[in-house]
Amino acid sequence: MKHFGRSSRRRLLQMGAAMGGGLLAGQQKVLAWDTPGKLGTPLGPYGERSPFEKAVRWRRESGTPETGSSFTPLQDSVGTLTPSSLHYERHHAGIPTIDPAKHRLVVHGMVDRPLSMTVAEIRRLPSVTRTLVLECGGNSASEWAARTGPDVQRSYGLASCSEWTGVPLSLVLAEVGVRPGAAWVIAEGADACRMERSIPLAKAMDDILLAYGQNGEAIRPAQGYPLRLIIPGWEGNTSVKWLHSLKLTDQAYMARDETAKYSDLMPDGKTRIFTYQMEAKSVITFPSGGQTMPGRGLYELTGLAWSGRGRIERVEITTDGGRSWVNAQLQEPRLPIAFTRFRLPWRFDGRDAVIASRATDESGYIQPTREALVAVRGTNSIYHFNGIKYWTVKADGTVTNVEV
Amino acid sequence: MKHFGRSSRRRLLQMGAAMGGGLLAGQQKVLAWDTPGKLGTPLGPYGERSPFEKAVRWRRESGTPETGSSFTPLQDSVGTLTPSSLHYERHHAGIPTIDPAKHRLVVHGMVDRPLSMTVAEIRRLPSVTRTLVLECGGNSASEWAARTGPDVQRSYGLASCSEWTGVPLSLVLAEVGVRPGAAWVIAEGADACRMERSIPLAKAMDDILLAYGQNGEAIRPAQGYPLRLIIPGWEGNTSVKWLHSLKLTDQAYMARDETAKYSDLMPDGKTRIFTYQMEAKSVITFPSGGQTMPGRGLYELTGLAWSGRGRIERVEITTDGGRSWVNAQLQEPRLPIAFTRFRLPWRFDGRDAVIASRATDESGYIQPTREALVAVRGTNSIYHFNGIKYWTVKADGTVTNVEV
Repeated sequence: MKHFGRSSRRRLLQMGAAMGGGLLAGQQKVLAWDTPGKLGTPLGPYGERSPFEKAVRWRRESGTPETGSSFTPLQDSVGTLTPSSLHYERHHAGIPTIDPAKHRLVVHGMVDRPLSMTVAEIRRLPSVTRTLVLECGGNSASEWAARTGPDVQRSYGLASCSEWTGVPLSLVLAEVGVRPGAAWVIAEGADACRMERSIPLAKAMDDILLAYGQNGEAIRPAQGYPLRLIIPGWEGNTSVKWLHSLKLTDQAYMARDETAKYSDLMPDGKTRIFTYQMEAKSVITFPSGGQTMPGRGLYELTGLAWSGRGRIERVEITTDGGRSWVNAQLQEPRLPIAFTRFRLPWRFDGRDAVIASRATDESGYIQPTREALVAVRGTNSIYHFNGIKYWTVKADGTVTNVEV
Repeated sequence: MKHFGRSSRRRLLQMGAAMGGGLLAGQQKVLAWDTPGKLGTPLGPYGERSPFEKAVRWRRESGTPETGSSFTPLQDSVGTLTPSSLHYERHHAGIPTIDPAKHRLVVHGMVDRPLSMTVAEIRRLPSVTRTLVLECGGNSASEWAARTGPDVQRSYGLASCSEWTGVPLSLVLAEVGVRPGAAWVIAEGADACRMERSIPLAKAMDDILLAYGQNGEAIRPAQGYPLRLIIPGWEGNTSVKWLHSLKLTDQAYMARDETAKYSDLMPDGKTRIFTYQMEAKSVITFPSGGQTMPGRGLYELTGLAWSGRGRIERVEITTDGGRSWVNAQLQEPRLPIAFTRFRLPWRFDGRDAVIASRATDESGYIQPTREALVAVRGTNSIYHFNGIKYWTVKADGTVTNVEV
């Protein structure tokens, strides 16, 4: 029991009891099943998932399938990583097919020694690996005005977590020699729309990566192959995919995606821009909207918490609509700016239950209620919703996003 | 520079200097490339890797493609995880196609309350997530008698690292009530050969998982879908795939895979059996056998270290055939019984260099030389090779497994 602690053991025993022997009674006779009696399929060069697994990204029907968002099926997630095949997408001109042998990263503008590097050259430089969540600034946009996302995929699925490997941007900036007066780095992608964002130099000198690796292999095309800017803790749009140009300037560019988009219209009619930072957030993934409990008894309630400001320190759970809260168990290691899996044994007793999670990060910031958020920012906003999310488990076992 | 430290910055500057401006000279004119000018491909439900990426598992040609081993391409690895699609395979009767709705885990034998559970029932139980390396007991078998593995894939590729999620076996054993006198758990897979191994009860009560999740989604068929025993730190064969039966007994079974196989023939003709434990090990993945350096200059020498006994505390590198050793940088977090990526900037000056890595784990154990290992165990062994691995970088840039 060394690795799991005595409390886990007690919990399971309670679970057995609470199920009235449900796991045991009537099943002792099922001591075998019709297991395969013939050879299986051969070993293969590059494996696939089971044909019985059906989880896919979801996207709204669209006349322009090259633009839009596709959402990670968080309801099917286990652990803390997102499979690269299910990492959320947000594209503005489709996924370019880039030959890494021809691709170049150009670092230019207010620098002493402008630089053009191949991916192979970048891979010779000192690298680091970090597990980081990426979250679209527009994740949970549906939650601002009304709780319209019927399930956790469609309302929270623009967040995914990968292990990224790449070169610290600060090293490359030291190499090119940033000139006095330079204050911004304009990052531009090699997609057809040349998506670009303005990044303050201070952040560029801090913890940004020029990433070429994702979850142990080359970054996937849908996530920026062969090179992506990875900006820890900031809205995903700033982590420019298919990165091909970094230009040092003395001013921000006021690009489309930091003025018309990815800016926050406040109640007074003014707009906040350059609101890069993602705050602490959490959501219960089981039980969640659209799921049905197979019956009464004990379950593992579980979900994901993360913060752009660092580690998750605490996740509290309510199962009575916010009247009382208890601490969930947090999966270690809790890595900064990464998904933290939380878990709590929970008994569904066949009565309506309103459940939610509330995260606190290492800065002491506590995830606010939707009402507190709206009181400050109004309901014109599209971006940066991180309010507490409630699900209702109904007496018949169905789960919805509607509060009782 | 907060996250990367001053030493990294100094290193890159040295690199630029050592390359004689190689990254800079003649490339300032390449300030752009022929980037895509049209829409890319649409968003998709389940992503694939780039068509330019070709890394695959390797296997020996065989008349029985359902049995054998396939090897992870460690030379292409980045970071610390292995993509599920490239996780090594070792099958004895092919990969069964199992419908999780029909699959059962039966826990029986010397227990008070025999138990049969569906996968859905197991997923209701309290779960944990751990990043763990699995290594075949026969990994690097080619290194015992002679250094015959031409590259790191074929000589070290039966080791892979994933994030596993599942239920502690100890919880289920508490539920069934282990009877006095029971001392072993016989684990059996649902493949056609009913692969089975005997596990001491003490280990079963410690840190074993009934795993259903791998790298954020359901475990892959080639790794045991829908349920695999995951035994931290022990030879991979004990982590029985397609797990369908756990039987409590008072004796080991002396099954085929713990007598005829996965046992160690010693120089005196006796055989060590039940040698489950994997020891500290490491290997340089770049530069490694079969690769060619594109030219002189600075590179990041890198590789992987792991130990079945816990965390990696230190990895030393030699580039002069073992005369001198320096500490490599270790990627944090260093998780127990997981791949730890190590890195060291290294200048290839166009002269023959004999390179190797040497790992020390948290128990204080230091990876031995091949000679020290052979002195104790002889060369009859197939399993548990963890000696120091040398590569030769030749003056022409080619890398081989032959020592100068």
